[in-house]
Amino acid sequence: MPIVEAHVLEGYAPDAKRRLVRALTDAVRFVVPAPDEAITVMLHDYAAENYGRGGQMRQPAPALPDPEKIVLDYLAAMEAREIDRAQALLGEGFVMTFPGAEPMTSLAELIAWAKGRYRFVKKTYEASEAFHSNGAAVVYTRGTLAGEWPDGTAFEGIRFIDRFELTGGKITRQDVWNDLAEVRNA
Amino acid sequence: MPIVEAHVLEGYAPDAKRRLVRALTDAVRFVVPAPDEAITVMLHDYAAENYGRGGQMRQPAPALPDPEKIVLDYLAAMEAREIDRAQALLGEGFVMTFPGAEPMTSLAELIAWAKGRYRFVKKTYEASEAFHSNGAAVVYTRGTLAGEWPDGTAFEGIRFIDRFELTGGKITRQDVWNDLAEVRNA
Amino acid sequence: MPIVEAHVLEGYAPDAKRRLVRALTDAVRFVVPAPDEAITVMLHDYAAENYGRGGQMRQPAPALPDPEKIVLDYLAAMEAREIDRAQALLGEGFVMTFPGAEPMTSLAELIAWAKGRYRFVKKTYEASEAFHSNGAAVVYTRGTLAGEWPDGTAFEGIRFIDRFELTGGKITRQDVWNDLAEVRNA
Amino acid sequence: MPIVEAHVLEGYAPDAKRRLVRALTDAVRFVVPAPDEAITVMLHDYAAENYGRGGQMRQPAPALPDPEKIVLDYLAAMEAREIDRAQALLGEGFVMTFPGAEPMTSLAELIAWAKGRYRFVKKTYEASEAFHSNGAAVVYTRGTLAGEWPDGTAFEGIRFIDRFELTGGKITRQDVWNDLAEVRNA
Amino acid sequence: MPIVEAHVLEGYAPDAKRRLVRALTDAVRFVVPAPDEAITVMLHDYAAENYGRGGQMRQPAPALPDPEKIVLDYLAAMEAREIDRAQALLGEGFVMTFPGAEPMTSLAELIAWAKGRYRFVKKTYEASEAFHSNGAAVVYTRGTLAGEWPDGTAFEGIRFIDRFELTGGKITRQDVWNDLAEVRNA
Amino acid sequence: MPIVEAHVLEGYAPDAKRRLVRALTDAVRFVVPAPDEAITVMLHDYAAENYGRGGQMRQPAPALPDPEKIVLDYLAAMEAREIDRAQALLGEGFVMTFPGAEPMTSLAELIAWAKGRYRFVKKTYEASEAFHSNGAAVVYTRGTLAGEWPDGTAFEGIRFIDRFELTGGKITRQDVWNDLAEVRNA
Repeated sequence: MPIVEAHVLEGYAPDAKRRLVRALTDAVRFVVPAPDEAITVMLHDYAAENYGRGGQMRQPAPALPDPEKIVLDYLAAMEAREIDRAQALLGEGFVMTFPGAEPMTSLAELIAWAKGRYRFVKKTYEASEAFHSNGAAVVYTRGTLAGEWPDGTAFEGIRFIDRFELTGGKITRQDVWNDLAEVRNA
Repeated sequence: MPIVEAHVLEGYAPDAKRRLVRALTDAVRFVVPAPDEAITVMLHDYAAENYGRGGQMRQPAPALPDPEKIVLDYLAAMEAREIDRAQALLGEGFVMTFPGAEPMTSLAELIAWAKGRYRFVKKTYEASEAFHSNGAAVVYTRGTLAGEWPDGTAFEGIRFIDRFELTGGKITRQDVWNDLAEVRNA
Repeated sequence: MPIVEAHVLEGYAPDAKRRLVRALTDAVRFVVPAPDEAITVMLHDYAAENYGRGGQMRQPAPALPDPEKIVLDYLAAMEAREIDRAQALLGEGFVMTFPGAEPMTSLAELIAWAKGRYRFVKKTYEASEAFHSNGAAVVYTRGTLAGEWPDGTAFEGIRFIDRFELTGGKITRQDVWNDLAEVRNA
Repeated sequence: MPIVEAHVLEGYAPDAKRRLVRALTDAVRFVVPAPDEAITVMLHDYAAENYGRGGQMRQPAPALPDPEKIVLDYLAAMEAREIDRAQALLGEGFVMTFPGAEPMTSLAELIAWAKGRYRFVKKTYEASEAFHSNGAAVVYTRGTLAGEWPDGTAFEGIRFIDRFELTGGKITRQDVWNDLAEVRNA
Repeated sequence: MPIVEAHVLEGYAPDAKRRLVRALTDAVRFVVPAPDEAITVMLHDYAAENYGRGGQMRQPAPALPDPEKIVLDYLAAMEAREIDRAQALLGEGFVMTFPGAEPMTSLAELIAWAKGRYRFVKKTYEASEAFHSNGAAVVYTRGTLAGEWPDGTAFEGIRFIDRFELTGGKITRQDVWNDLAEVRNA
Repeated sequence: MPIVEAHVLEGYAPDAKRRLVRALTDAVRFVVPAPDEAITVMLHDYAAENYGRGGQMRQPAPALPDPEKIVLDYLAAMEAREIDRAQALLGEGFVMTFPGAEPMTSLAELIAWAKGRYRFVKKTYEASEAFHSNGAAVVYTRGTLAGEWPDGTAFEGIRFIDRFELTGGKITRQDVWNDLAEVRNA
């Protein structure tokens, strides 16, 4: 115990199934104090002809993409300043909130603002977490920042955490916290 | 679709079952693009006599406590400076990392350090999220800080996010990020 | 084979469960050529705390009443001319269609019309069938009619069939066919 | 809720599965007041090697044919007077009961009898219902009749209902009610 | 893996359930090379109102008794020469086959025959096994015999094995093999 | 009732599935007094991607071989004195216990010992039973022996029973009981 069975329409790739199995396993670990090797998850696939709701047969829909991959892809694009590639990952209503700035909606705006804060910044990731919460996929990435201040002085090991929301596979919100001000003004 | 069935030993209170149902539902929403009203979760209870593993009958174990409640309880105790009550919620190896400080392990240490940062601080919570990740329960609480600087000046609306880890119902780690330095030094 | 499992919220009386088991068994017999003793139905009850949809716990609703009982009750009340008792079983929009008459909506109208057809009529039921179709419960009752013509002559063994629709436990439609004209005019 | 799972031997065509899903859904609607979109049906297919009864592996049997199709096919053949095609759909012991006639067993007998009733008759179908009841598949078709009396006068809009029983895919019984006498003698 | 679910009518005592869980676990171990702690068995109880076969509700029947207990009880009664108690455990058609004797049907016959073989004999049980095979419960008990020959000489450590068949909780067959002759004639 | 479902990783051949279905059926017959035709077993296969334990996907392992076949193969090889073929079926720690002999571990030892007992012996099998017990597969074969004594005299109809244990598909133990001494010394 416990044993979890999920009944889904067929068509999900092994990768999506792996994420579903992990998410269901973590859901159990959240409440039930069972050792890992006792938590079993079984997925049942159903061909469309084997499933009906409301007396109607239904069509399978593709799995939601891995939000962690999308976020890491976005952060890599931003770090390389590949704006078009980053922009393609954003959804309608996207808004970013950075420490010490009013919420921003455009990447150009962010880049201009960032120029006043540092020459460049690189992220070293410690860990990331992804789950569903209240209608959106949520991704947290945290780690440390390294880079150069406007005056050329280097900095490193500055703590950061980003929180992303994704809907329908697109990033709709980014909230950033970091210790840049602590260190800059130390 | 999808439908999730979880088979658990009996004895979980309705509150624990509610958390399990929510967690399993969120696990599905994480991968499957189904509308909420299509995600069904069914829990099957088993009396100890109805379940065996390795040919042996097993005993049910109590559910893990709600980590969100424990964290909010801890933060309330700290805000009220009820140190004993807060301490009782901490587990072995507890370590706190605050912006601009080296990691701390004792609450007395934290309180002394905080004295130099502000006269007092109150948290206004915007949202909290809880889930299992890699062997621990993780809780994020975020919102804004209000309070008074050492010189008596008031501050408010300062963004913060805390990340907690809990194991066996005890808090073992707290990481804090906030914009205090941004605002203080603005 | 086949085996049918139905997962329902708890609270249904044994009588409702019996009807559900029969209906599910007949559903299988309709498509699968298995001998009766091979068709198994198992009902799983769920306490409200063991079931969630869309992450929310749901409340059980009482079973729909047995439409066959309601119809036979209505026909008995009409035969005894207990109009109030019959009326209480009717739903909004109730309409009756009898052979040789325009559709009627009121029981008084029906009784007046019937006076011109026969002194009295008694139904002998051969069989009744009940099932769900297109949003309503449907009941067929058939058998023979016996009674007296307006001139006092007796008649018997006249074939009839009635079709009823019920929604929410109330009768909303009655269609009648019979051989009264064949026999009367023979 | 509710959720129905049916375990069947593999080999049923999508069309048979669709009928099974609909029948199971209607079985639930008959007793449980759930909205349509809450009634889920899942079919589990079993290869012969995955199923045993009494310790023996069993062979799948083909699904029963759609009785509604057979009945409409029969009625179309009769309307077109394609007697051989109609006869092929009849089973042993077939008996027909029409208003104003003794039960008949041969199609030739019916055709001869009908000659005295009308020159021809065409059916306009309002609806049909099919389900299993007491060992047979039952089909009801109802609507109106149009045609010409023996004297050539036309008639139309005359109410009719037919009840068919099928066993093993063959029609074994037909009971007919209609208002021909009401109208003819009006 | 593997996971076994058994659906049974309610009413079985914990002891019967334990035997069922063990038997199902052993059934899996017979074919699947899974470690013991990976074999899970879950029993689902059904109240009579929650189960139907052939559209009929069925009544639960009591579990079959533990044949191992019955056999050991019988052997103890025979050792103590409590003939009535032993006889009560026998079923119709009971037949015993001992080494060096024609099949016997009555306990008196056995006791008389045994007198010629030894003064008394006591069984030391090494192990017993019980399972179902071909319509009967089968129990094997094996170990060693100790006792006295007719001439008063003692013997011990003589290998034996008994095979019993039980139907409906009564012993219907006993086959005995032992090395008494090997030792006696050595 | 009852109904047994076994969830296994895919890859088992029909023959292994047949043995699993029989073993599960016998497990039920051991405790539940249901008629054979009421005991249904359904196997659910899972592709590796549809199953996870402890959040990890697992690999299927091949089924254990049919121990009855291995034992009968071994006995046939021994009867034909094909020692290499017989030896290949033995596992580490194999030990044989025959009536009137100390336990033996080598086939050569057995053959030499047997020479003193009879010129040759042939087995006629009455029945065999196989099941899992306490970590090993157990096989019983019983029947009668026929052959020739060292002096050339023939014997036949002598009762025997053999008990084998197998682990990992290899024979690790053989215990033999028979009436050779009874008959030889009669």
